Amino acid sequence: MTVLVFLDPAFPDGRIADAGSPALLATDQGVTRGDGVFESLLAVNSAPRKVQAHLGRLAKSAHALDLAIPDAEAWLRAIATAALAFAGASPQEPDEHGNTNIVIKLIATRGPEGADKPTAWVQASAVSPLLAEQRARGLDVILLDRGYDSSVSGRAPWLLLGAKTLSYAVNMAALRHAHAQGADDVIFTSGDGHVLEGPTSSVLLAHVTDDSGAPVKRLITPNLDSGILPGTTQGALFAAAKDAGWELGYGPVKPEDLRDADAVWLISSIRLLAPVNTIDGREIGTPRVRARLTAELSALLAQTH
Amino acid sequence: MTVLVFLDPAFPDGRIADAGSPALLATDQGVTRGDGVFESLLAVNSAPRKVQAHLGRLAKSAHALDLAIPDAEAWLRAIATAALAFAGASPQEPDEHGNTNIVIKLIATRGPEGADKPTAWVQASAVSPLLAEQRARGLDVILLDRGYDSSVSGRAPWLLLGAKTLSYAVNMAALRHAHAQGADDVIFTSGDGHVLEGPTSSVLLAHVTDDSGAPVKRLITPNLDSGILPGTTQGALFAAAKDAGWELGYGPVKPEDLRDADAVWLISSIRLLAPVNTIDGREIGTPRVRARLTAELSALLAQTH
Repeated sequence: MTVLVFLDPAFPDGRIADAGSPALLATDQGVTRGDGVFESLLAVNSAPRKVQAHLGRLAKSAHALDLAIPDAEAWLRAIATAALAFAGASPQEPDEHGNTNIVIKLIATRGPEGADKPTAWVQASAVSPLLAEQRARGLDVILLDRGYDSSVSGRAPWLLLGAKTLSYAVNMAALRHAHAQGADDVIFTSGDGHVLEGPTSSVLLAHVTDDSGAPVKRLITPNLDSGILPGTTQGALFAAAKDAGWELGYGPVKPEDLRDADAVWLISSIRLLAPVNTIDGREIGTPRVRARLTAELSALLAQTH
Repeated sequence: MTVLVFLDPAFPDGRIADAGSPALLATDQGVTRGDGVFESLLAVNSAPRKVQAHLGRLAKSAHALDLAIPDAEAWLRAIATAALAFAGASPQEPDEHGNTNIVIKLIATRGPEGADKPTAWVQASAVSPLLAEQRARGLDVILLDRGYDSSVSGRAPWLLLGAKTLSYAVNMAALRHAHAQGADDVIFTSGDGHVLEGPTSSVLLAHVTDDSGAPVKRLITPNLDSGILPGTTQGALFAAAKDAGWELGYGPVKPEDLRDADAVWLISSIRLLAPVNTIDGREIGTPRVRARLTAELSALLAQTH
């Protein structure tokens, strides 16, 4: 079950379309060139989470592509329409906290060739049960080279690093490569050996003791200027963790920093905080500490909006 | 005017669809993930040129993406249907040789999410008059960093270098970057300073004298293992040029090799052989030699199939 709502000036709240019928022209540059931007976010009890952060990132991605997209107000109305229509058509089972969750995807393409008019829509669908399962059991991850130097992003804006574009073929190929090796997910590294991000997530690591063994609470994520996507969920968790007494740090992160961490997570808007059990077959921390920290940080994350 | 022909087992010659009506589901992974492959080729008097080379490259691209696509026979039938329908609906003016030319695009995506069935179609459309104009007047080109090392391709197949995927957002952004600077096109260089390819073309350079000033006829293109797309038109021209007494060479090519060449071209299936007048504002060779070599090689190319 998928609900589609197209952003259309003739329909202030968005135009609902049948997801089972063709809705896009075959000449849309979203498909012929992967030329467009997107966001994925969770709606809890029909309320989109971190919606300003997602709309802000969508606007930044569109700016990087020199793509004019509808304004935030139009997206918010279409999101509300999609969430309401989905809740009516396909009521979800409440989760362990009594909340219902749905996935909201925002997509804007450069539109049909020659038309100079973007195509924009909101898609509402169910959360895959695989994601809760991955949160509960943790992930086996492999490191894969993303090919780029961590320094190229600033001097080569045409590479669109840090923009969330529809050109995700490499992200998908990396995930298939991991699955073929029996792994669940990927952490990309740069050509110069820095930890970057996952194909659909940010990377987070924690230390609970310092080099001398004294207790600390330290969360680290790779620096944004290495050409990664700014993580909206990582950002929300950092804000909540700071209030809860955690020290926060931003990379550079090296693979050995991941191996030395007490816990590593892949964090994203739909799967949320998924602990990494192993990287390239080597266990990260201990099951007990991973589980304790995952529970603590997931509780902090659940309080964010 | 665009003609669409979908590859559909129920229609052995392909299913003609109205290009002005929606034909794709909004959940097609071609648009949501840029997850698919394509080819663009010229049909001259309704006969597709180098069609086996294009179908071969399409199959290799699909293999790199682990994507099952229809077989060559199905593509050939759909191409014939599209060329015939287009010629009937929109007769083209003959070119200076009395031939009519149309653009044939082949596209295959991973299909709608969850369906495990690719979407595949052929698109026929007119050749943009800009291309003949660019062949005639030549191109002003800038060099842009593609971010990758020339050695990464072999060890990182998940980067899909050398596959022609629908994830072309970076190629389009590079072209926009060039246009914003008043240039026509781009030649990508690798992070380690090798010449790679254009966003939609291969790079070719010629020498007509050697270091001592003695006459030679030497064509050079960058080596394929630098992660570039194998050029079908470059390949066809090399075969014809060899028969005509040219020496052929394969990179590595450095930017200074371009500047030292007697002529440089961007070569591709639709625009064919477009001479490069300047790179980063610096003239390549002389107008007289560029024009003579372009005429000679274009004549060779016109004899290929």
